[in-house]
Amino acid sequence: MKFYVNTSIEVLERTPAVLSHLLAGLSPEWTAPNEGPDTWSPYDIIGHLIHGEKTDWIPRMDIILSDSTDKTFVPFDRFAQFKDSQGQSLEDLLAEFSALRKENLDYLRSKNLGDQQLTMKGMHPELGEVSLSELLASWVVHDLNHISQINRVMAHQYKNEVGVWQAYMGILNS
Amino acid sequence: MKFYVNTSIEVLERTPAVLSHLLAGLSPEWTAPNEGPDTWSPYDIIGHLIHGEKTDWIPRMDIILSDSTDKTFVPFDRFAQFKDSQGQSLEDLLAEFSALRKENLDYLRSKNLGDQQLTMKGMHPELGEVSLSELLASWVVHDLNHISQINRVMAHQYKNEVGVWQAYMGILNS
Repeated sequence: MKFYVNTSIEVLERTPAVLSHLLAGLSPEWTAPNEGPDTWSPYDIIGHLIHGEKTDWIPRMDIILSDSTDKTFVPFDRFAQFKDSQGQSLEDLLAEFSALRKENLDYLRSKNLGDQQLTMKGMHPELGEVSLSELLASWVVHDLNHISQINRVMAHQYKNEVGVWQAYMGILNS
Repeated sequence: MKFYVNTSIEVLERTPAVLSHLLAGLSPEWTAPNEGPDTWSPYDIIGHLIHGEKTDWIPRMDIILSDSTDKTFVPFDRFAQFKDSQGQSLEDLLAEFSALRKENLDYLRSKNLGDQQLTMKGMHPELGEVSLSELLASWVVHDLNHISQINRVMAHQYKNEVGVWQAYMGILNS
């Protein structure tokens, strides 16, 4: 499947509703635990997605599209959510993510990106040279990755409750 | 996390809306392809979930709760969807799944299951003896497993579009 901005937006614009329908109002027993030391809970993951909206995808697009001679991205803070989410409910975070995503997609649409812009390059601090279309495709896959992860973390909480069915559940053995 | 009927229903009742918000109206480029030979597309997976509502979870609960001396489950047909879904749109399937799930959860709630019933046993044709609570916990994990899988299958379509970011995307390397 080839990258297109419009087919990417189809997925990106659905993510806030998917996450809200999955998580809003759910018992904290499902949303607060993680999968063990140094892993993230569904609550942590929503905070991570918020930080991405603020500092990752669109700010990096702007760096690529800028006239600057140095197009090196600012390193992403993978642990920002542990401070930023403090004192907020999961529902607060879902609402914030939803508002930021809408704003970012409105901005993306306003750019009317063409092929010339999509091949422009930026410098990832660890991965090296990347194109704008790769950045935007990664935004989509990053959403899908974390929706999948949230489902896996929730499934993990019932690992011992399914008994011998564990053998059939790929999600419990990955 | 210990199994409870009510906390299980919290997840089970959300699944139809999660899947509809993820998939309804999405381009077939996202929903029709699979991950390669002998794998399933998002479209196939919704058909599989429908077949589960009809023949798996609730019918097996009824076998466990019955007075029969033989509580062996009918084997589940993992390929039924390839015939049953024919001629139906993804949106048709999502609507059918949603209606069946609602009906099944109404029925589950009407049973008011207590501890005595939750420890009753049935005979899985391959796995052997299983309890009702294990069956119901597996219903929950099965949902989460397939939501996660759908996101993985969708991500796979952009595997070549993310460039060097592939290294950071666990979902593309599982």
